[in-house]
Amino acid sequence: MEIYKVSQELVCTRRTPGLGHHSLRVLEAADGSLSVATDPVGAPVGKWVFTTIGTAARFAMSDPTVVTDLTICGLIDNWE
Amino acid sequence: MEIYKVSQELVCTRRTPGLGHHSLRVLEAADGSLSVATDPVGAPVGKWVFTTIGTAARFAMSDPTVVTDLTICGLIDNWE
Amino acid sequence: MEIYKVSQELVCTRRTPGLGHHSLRVLEAADGSLSVATDPVGAPVGKWVFTTIGTAARFAMSDPTVVTDLTICGLIDNWE
Amino acid sequence: MEIYKVSQELVCTRRTPGLGHHSLRVLEAADGSLSVATDPVGAPVGKWVFTTIGTAARFAMSDPTVVTDLTICGLIDNWE
Amino acid sequence: MEIYKVSQELVCTRRTPGLGHHSLRVLEAADGSLSVATDPVGAPVGKWVFTTIGTAARFAMSDPTVVTDLTICGLIDNWE
Repeated sequence: MEIYKVSQELVCTRRTPGLGHHSLRVLEAADGSLSVATDPVGAPVGKWVFTTIGTAARFAMSDPTVVTDLTICGLIDNWE
Repeated sequence: MEIYKVSQELVCTRRTPGLGHHSLRVLEAADGSLSVATDPVGAPVGKWVFTTIGTAARFAMSDPTVVTDLTICGLIDNWE
Repeated sequence: MEIYKVSQELVCTRRTPGLGHHSLRVLEAADGSLSVATDPVGAPVGKWVFTTIGTAARFAMSDPTVVTDLTICGLIDNWE
Repeated sequence: MEIYKVSQELVCTRRTPGLGHHSLRVLEAADGSLSVATDPVGAPVGKWVFTTIGTAARFAMSDPTVVTDLTICGLIDNWE
Repeated sequence: MEIYKVSQELVCTRRTPGLGHHSLRVLEAADGSLSVATDPVGAPVGKWVFTTIGTAARFAMSDPTVVTDLTICGLIDNWE
C-alpha cells in the first residue's frame, strides 16, 4: 500500500458507467506524481492517506464491481 | 488510476482476436512515456483522461473478455 | 517478492472496514521510498523482510478478504 | 498496454511446464530495458508491437493456462 | 516476463505458512535492484533466468496456493 497526500477532488462529468457516482480524489506521491483514487473514507484535501491497488481496490469499496484500481484505505495519523 | 493526455489513435491491422475491433488510443503520461489503451468513452485527441488497469480495465469495457490491461475511464474537466 | 527494511508501525485510526484491525508496518525500500504493508509474521522495526503483492498478499494473511496489496512474507536471515 | 520493439527470439531449453512450447520474444522498450513475452501473433524481429499484462496476458493466448505475464497483442502499423 | 541473474539463495527461517518450504532465490535485475523469487526449475547461482509475476507466478509453481508474486520460469540459453 502506498502513501499519498490528497491534492484535490477530481471533476469528471463524462465517465464509464462502471465508476458510478463515487467521489474521486487526485493524490500526490512523494515524488510529485499524480494519481486518481476512489475514496470510501472521506479523506479531506491536504491529508496523508495510504491506498490499495488491484483486486483489493475494488474490494475496499462497498461495491466490488466499481472499476477502480486505486482506493484510499485510511488516513495516516501524525504523518510528516 | 493514472492521468494521461490522448496523443493519437493507434492503427493496428494485425491483432490478437481477444481485442476484437475495439478502438485503441495512444496515451502520453506526464513524463512523456507512451501507452496504449482501449477507449469505451470516445476520448478525443488532446484531451486529458484517467485510466484503470488490471481486471478493472476489462470490467470497464462493455465486454469483460477483451484482453486489455489499460482502459480509459473518463475525461477530466478543466485540467491544466 | 521485494526486499524492505521495517521502518515503523503505522498509526491509522480511520480506515476502511476491509482492513480490520490488522497491524500495519511502514517499510523502506533500498531507494528510500516508503510503502505500507500488513504483517502476519510480527516483523520488528529495523529488520529486513520480503513481501508479496497482489492476490498473493491477501492469501498470505490468515483472512484472504483483507484489502491489502502488500504483505510481509518472512524475515531475511543475515541480511546486510 | 505498452509499446515495444521486437529484439530477438528467446532460446530457453529448460523451462517450467506451464509455458508449454510457446514461442518467446525478447522485447525492447523505449528506454532500452528488455522484457520477455509470449507471442500469439507471430511478430517479426524489428517490428513495433504492443503488449498486455496480467490476467489479460493469459487470456490473449489461445490457452489461458499458460503462465505468461506479458503477451504481444498486435503489430503497430506505421510506427516511428 | 523479466530477465534477472540469480544472485544467491535466500535464507529465511521465519516465514508465512503460505510459502511452505519452497526454495527462494535472490535475483538481480540489469539495473542492480534485487528481488526474491520462488524457483521451481532449480536455477543455479550466476545463471540468467526469466520470471513471471502475479497470478501466473502462483500457477507456475506445482502448487498454486503458494503466496509468491515472482516465479522463475526458465533458464535463458547463451545470454550475455
